Amino acid sequence: MITKLNSSHSDFQDNLSKLLAWESVSNSEVAQTVDDIIANIRNTGDKALVDYTNRFDRMNAQNMGELSINTATLKEAFDTLDEQEKTALKTAADRVKTYHQKQKQDTWTYTEDDGTMLGQKITPLDRVGLYVPGGKAAYPSSVLMNAIPAKVAGVEELIMVVPTPDSVTNQLVLAAAYISGVDTVFTVGGAQAVAALAYGTQTIPKVDKIVGPGNIYVATAKRVVFGQVGIDMIAGPSEILIICDGKTNPDWIAMDLFSQAEHDEDAQSILLCPDADFIDQVEASITKLLPTMKRKAIIATALKDRGALILTKDMDEAISLSNQIAPEHLELSVEDPQAMLDGIKHAGAIFMGRHTCESLGDYCAGPNHVLPTSGTARFSSPLGVYDFQKKSSLIMVSDEGANVLGEIAATLADGEGLQAHAQSARYRIK
Amino acid sequence: MITKLNSSHSDFQDNLSKLLAWESVSNSEVAQTVDDIIANIRNTGDKALVDYTNRFDRMNAQNMGELSINTATLKEAFDTLDEQEKTALKTAADRVKTYHQKQKQDTWTYTEDDGTMLGQKITPLDRVGLYVPGGKAAYPSSVLMNAIPAKVAGVEELIMVVPTPDSVTNQLVLAAAYISGVDTVFTVGGAQAVAALAYGTQTIPKVDKIVGPGNIYVATAKRVVFGQVGIDMIAGPSEILIICDGKTNPDWIAMDLFSQAEHDEDAQSILLCPDADFIDQVEASITKLLPTMKRKAIIATALKDRGALILTKDMDEAISLSNQIAPEHLELSVEDPQAMLDGIKHAGAIFMGRHTCESLGDYCAGPNHVLPTSGTARFSSPLGVYDFQKKSSLIMVSDEGANVLGEIAATLADGEGLQAHAQSARYRIK
Repeated sequence: MITKLNSSHSDFQDNLSKLLAWESVSNSEVAQTVDDIIANIRNTGDKALVDYTNRFDRMNAQNMGELSINTATLKEAFDTLDEQEKTALKTAADRVKTYHQKQKQDTWTYTEDDGTMLGQKITPLDRVGLYVPGGKAAYPSSVLMNAIPAKVAGVEELIMVVPTPDSVTNQLVLAAAYISGVDTVFTVGGAQAVAALAYGTQTIPKVDKIVGPGNIYVATAKRVVFGQVGIDMIAGPSEILIICDGKTNPDWIAMDLFSQAEHDEDAQSILLCPDADFIDQVEASITKLLPTMKRKAIIATALKDRGALILTKDMDEAISLSNQIAPEHLELSVEDPQAMLDGIKHAGAIFMGRHTCESLGDYCAGPNHVLPTSGTARFSSPLGVYDFQKKSSLIMVSDEGANVLGEIAATLADGEGLQAHAQSARYRIK
Repeated sequence: MITKLNSSHSDFQDNLSKLLAWESVSNSEVAQTVDDIIANIRNTGDKALVDYTNRFDRMNAQNMGELSINTATLKEAFDTLDEQEKTALKTAADRVKTYHQKQKQDTWTYTEDDGTMLGQKITPLDRVGLYVPGGKAAYPSSVLMNAIPAKVAGVEELIMVVPTPDSVTNQLVLAAAYISGVDTVFTVGGAQAVAALAYGTQTIPKVDKIVGPGNIYVATAKRVVFGQVGIDMIAGPSEILIICDGKTNPDWIAMDLFSQAEHDEDAQSILLCPDADFIDQVEASITKLLPTMKRKAIIATALKDRGALILTKDMDEAISLSNQIAPEHLELSVEDPQAMLDGIKHAGAIFMGRHTCESLGDYCAGPNHVLPTSGTARFSSPLGVYDFQKKSSLIMVSDEGANVLGEIAATLADGEGLQAHAQSARYRIK
């Protein structure tokens, strides 16, 4: 049902490597399809976009007007929700906004004794494209988490694309778009939507950055247009790593493992615990609770193929293994999580204490749920306001400063054989 | 010699588009070569790395020991410099360090009324690889600009790779590595060096991020390993855009245009000015000064193919065109650059005032000279300390907080059909 590993066994590191192994499976066929789609969108714009949408999403649109949703329709979608849903969505949006406002960066400068001013000017991106998957993976919470940081950053125009296969729209997704300030929605998806956002069409304006998750065609297209526009990370399957001292209710831990596994068959749920008895209890909870779950088939496959209950020597070893894994979600289900925090080096988000289950953070605690996966927390960060702001260096050298800096620059430019650099600096020396 | 454009002409926008057009010319042959190199490095590690290095760089190394440079050798390189060079390098390094220390971000948290704590933990990357090109483009200043922000961020292990074709090392580059705290140097380059850093070999440890410029093979390899490791932007040719009010010495402006053009034939130098007479004077200065330049052939080609002197209606239009171009380097050669700053939306670095030529910033003013090219300043930033730090969200929900957030999360999870998410949250409600 779920693999059990023991960190003391000699083959443990080999088994752990196999467990963690993941490479996105783009292949040359996908790459060629995506290249063709991008070329066609660049050549004929709206026409190609309507054609692809009719073909891939089984639609029958005549023009882009039929694939556009205006703000009034988004508001209508919000208005149809029941009060509990409205309140939940609104509260979540408010909390996400409050948290992200703390990430906003401001322009800074400093002036040296000779009057030379240095600094960095911070500005929002002008226009951002937000990709929202259609079908079973259409999550309103994902709209909040991508759109709100962009709006907090000050992005003027936020364009959302969401495929609506067979013309089925998701009212919660549209309501979330309304509540988080999305400016325009187009019901297109796939590599064709990415290409339209990156290069622009007659109807869809060219954006500066594209964020949001998608299938292999979307991910491949994002990789191709990277450079033409900015992109966020290319996400792998979602993962949770739980470190538990063996004193949390085992049903809670089992359900937390399920909450990751229910996403899809590739999702990864791992428990690290130094208490062998507790690991057996969690296993028993899994066996007991699994039949009660609606998505039990998905959960069972994910746990069998990619899950593990790992017995560690002690809590210190659990921390060290966690740093090696660099998980997307890390739950510290222990009495004093603060005491462990210094030791944690790599994780997308850290859920501290027995009452902080991952799903609170997924929806409404405030921090972003778009997090680095597959060990990329070693070098990347949660999506944030900083992804929608950019910086320009500021350099204003005083007449006096130019005398000093001119000499240094000229010396170094001579060393690099760059005569014009040197001469340009020397002109500024009195 | 250099194109002259007038923004009032009806074909101006077409001509400007042609002038700015740039797409990196990776092709399927390069992509296949890079894929093969990466596969071989992953399969046989050091052996493949030594083989490729001997073949591509005309070396005769027996093992990686012969392709390693230790800190003592770096120090020797620094010691051989003359006093003026030592001082210039040291002063530049100190100024770059001072500026970048202002970019360092710290962990932050806040606690809500019910005791719930939220925040973000900031940590440095563990290990970074720095690619430094060999041959004619081996710039010690580039070592400073890439290495110092990493060290300021707190990166423990900084590994530099630099090819040494025909076994020729550049003493200034090694001295710069010494002064900026590089930990280890390997004399390898190309896609094979990128692959070695991304996946590790017996000798080269796997890094978390690779930064630094390189040729088309290096850029293609970086794009392929993106995701396995972090990478910085993939740079296009360097560019300068000068906005001048017509009152700067035209020789200064001509030399500033040269200082970009001398980098290589693809470099781009553009002047925006509302004064037709001044544009003629700059053209005359170009004609007068070009024959005095050592790199006159490169400069002439760059100016002819990619340069332009553009007459604008007024200074406001110059600013608006500058925002459209989103230049890497923007020089505001005017009396009151501060007054123009609010209008500038997109630029890698802004050089303010007649005494602030770009080359001061390239070497020693303090800000980074690794900047977004080809219009990518619309969505990206100078290299900085923030590229070598990453963030982990912190979420510690109090027992009381879990009651409130649990209800909201459960409602939203139900809406998304994620039962385990909902149940996991409900367990935490009293």
